[in-house]
Amino acid sequence: MKQTYFTPGPAELYPTFYQHLQTALDDQIGSISHRSEKFRSIYRHTDEQLRILLNIPASHGIFFTGSASEVWERVLFNCVEHESFHLVNGSFSRKFYDYANSLHKFAHLFEKPFGEGFDLAEIDVPEYAELVCLTHNETSSGVQMRPVEMHKLKRKYPKKLFCVDMVSSAPYPDLDFSLIDSAFFSVQKAFGMPAGLGVWIASKACLEKAERLQKYDSLTIGAHHTLPTLWKHYDTFETPATPNVLYIYLLGKITEDFNKIGIDTIRKQTEEKARLLYKFLDESSAYEAFVKEERHRSQTVIVANTEQPSADVIAATKAAGMVVGSGYGKHKATQIRIANFPATSISQVNALINQLKK
Amino acid sequence: MKQTYFTPGPAELYPTFYQHLQTALDDQIGSISHRSEKFRSIYRHTDEQLRILLNIPASHGIFFTGSASEVWERVLFNCVEHESFHLVNGSFSRKFYDYANSLHKFAHLFEKPFGEGFDLAEIDVPEYAELVCLTHNETSSGVQMRPVEMHKLKRKYPKKLFCVDMVSSAPYPDLDFSLIDSAFFSVQKAFGMPAGLGVWIASKACLEKAERLQKYDSLTIGAHHTLPTLWKHYDTFETPATPNVLYIYLLGKITEDFNKIGIDTIRKQTEEKARLLYKFLDESSAYEAFVKEERHRSQTVIVANTEQPSADVIAATKAAGMVVGSGYGKHKATQIRIANFPATSISQVNALINQLKK
Repeated sequence: MKQTYFTPGPAELYPTFYQHLQTALDDQIGSISHRSEKFRSIYRHTDEQLRILLNIPASHGIFFTGSASEVWERVLFNCVEHESFHLVNGSFSRKFYDYANSLHKFAHLFEKPFGEGFDLAEIDVPEYAELVCLTHNETSSGVQMRPVEMHKLKRKYPKKLFCVDMVSSAPYPDLDFSLIDSAFFSVQKAFGMPAGLGVWIASKACLEKAERLQKYDSLTIGAHHTLPTLWKHYDTFETPATPNVLYIYLLGKITEDFNKIGIDTIRKQTEEKARLLYKFLDESSAYEAFVKEERHRSQTVIVANTEQPSADVIAATKAAGMVVGSGYGKHKATQIRIANFPATSISQVNALINQLKK
Repeated sequence: MKQTYFTPGPAELYPTFYQHLQTALDDQIGSISHRSEKFRSIYRHTDEQLRILLNIPASHGIFFTGSASEVWERVLFNCVEHESFHLVNGSFSRKFYDYANSLHKFAHLFEKPFGEGFDLAEIDVPEYAELVCLTHNETSSGVQMRPVEMHKLKRKYPKKLFCVDMVSSAPYPDLDFSLIDSAFFSVQKAFGMPAGLGVWIASKACLEKAERLQKYDSLTIGAHHTLPTLWKHYDTFETPATPNVLYIYLLGKITEDFNKIGIDTIRKQTEEKARLLYKFLDESSAYEAFVKEERHRSQTVIVANTEQPSADVIAATKAAGMVVGSGYGKHKATQIRIANFPATSISQVNALINQLKK
């Protein structure tokens, strides 16, 4: 039986994915050279569409990696000489912090319990931290940080570089890229594609930092996908190595579809579906929203405690043709996670709610 | 017009690619969790089929990255404390060497002019080199190194780790993995898939080295796709981050198809098609094989000097429904490169030769 995937990534494929894939196959996009004009026009198109969707200014470049996890490493290599600062409240923000430690950066940590979020007033960025690492949406716990708070934090610390993990929420958060130096996501979440492509947005300030660090003998900024190499090739819409050409094409096409709907409408639809889901959870006796503070509740990954073992809920839902995610880590048996991405419609969300009510 | 791609990667898609992709879409492989039993069985199947095809022993693990270029960086991070040694005779073997410099390794170089190959007798591996970096097939110049020479070199230096770039030749070279510690390739060459997946084969000796280096404060082995993390997850056929699940599935299916034909037959077909192409070039007055020494001539990427401007040859060939590659770098205008991968049949190669004769 064909399932509807409400899993937080990999997730349901966007409905137009299939027709774009067919066009790409007919056009032999899988065989074209990444040094051809045809590829450059694909990169240019995807770049243009992402700029429109996410309101990305000319000061920032858009680059492709193998995954968003790779970007954790790249941004730390390229933008941190000694010290980074991490807000950690779940498994993925912690992995970003762990990556900094693996690279022998001095990584400062402000940690909150799983399920809790961050508010501006309580955040002090350490004096020598060069890069502030924020997670817009913590996929493991369903907690989000409001962009307005991120922007205010940057205004408080204007000389530090700010980086936002928007892996499981882009294009939902309305980031102001005059304040946010770098952000990244992967395509298997809200863009409704199979996994295998990371998107890295970075400013010229990030590039300048990387160019400075690259001159030091005492540290490396890595060899593959360094920001100076990415940017040099980006100037002509090429990539240093052979990229995932097919997925870059598909991302451009799906982003174009998003732009036809309009980012405001997509954000409103996301909020409306999230409202329905949280309303159901708040009124239900069999479920409850895991995140207590409304301002910290994710709009794109909704986490619920289940009265029954979550495996039973997942099995019953699957039997009805819908797949929800299990809880993360030690919450696996007691929580479910419901992705709220553009690929699933309001009527599909209502069908899920009706099933969960049973 | 549908073209037949004889380009050295991205290249012609393998004929069975389309049906496997359709099956994957029907089965919603693009949406499944990388933490599910379904994904583990996909990884296990691809691993099994690659082991059969390439005769990979249990001492070696098989891992997935974003590209083969990424593996250049990973193997240097994980297997070199101070010194590496590189045989360089073209643009890609040089990039491997450049990566070592970018990581501040002390990289020893033995370089030959573009178009020339390496013979065992002339190679002295520096005393303190920890990793010997060989390129089986230099994609830019069409030069190959014979596996038997690689094996003898390892026997001469048994304590050093040996790594083979087989990006544009796998599964053709018959490597003896009791001697070769690591090898890697990407799927958009001889496996006939779109770009976006690298395959990294590495031995327990590589893992042990990485585990040792990981304890040092004085260097980093990176944070993403480190060998200890890859191997830990590999033990249960998982990956540290969300991988390109769809392409791992497709790689397993195409490798299974290769195994049904049999690696001996694939190698013989490759040699037969290469023989036809080199025979044509040797007898032609309008073309000549760029690589003079027969023992150094690549079986998978055949490079020819053209009497006419290569752009004219490429345009005429394209008008006839076939795409050949241009020369690399400064040879762009005077050479063509013809990929000889399993995706193109002997009759397609004959059709190309007939066209080039015109």
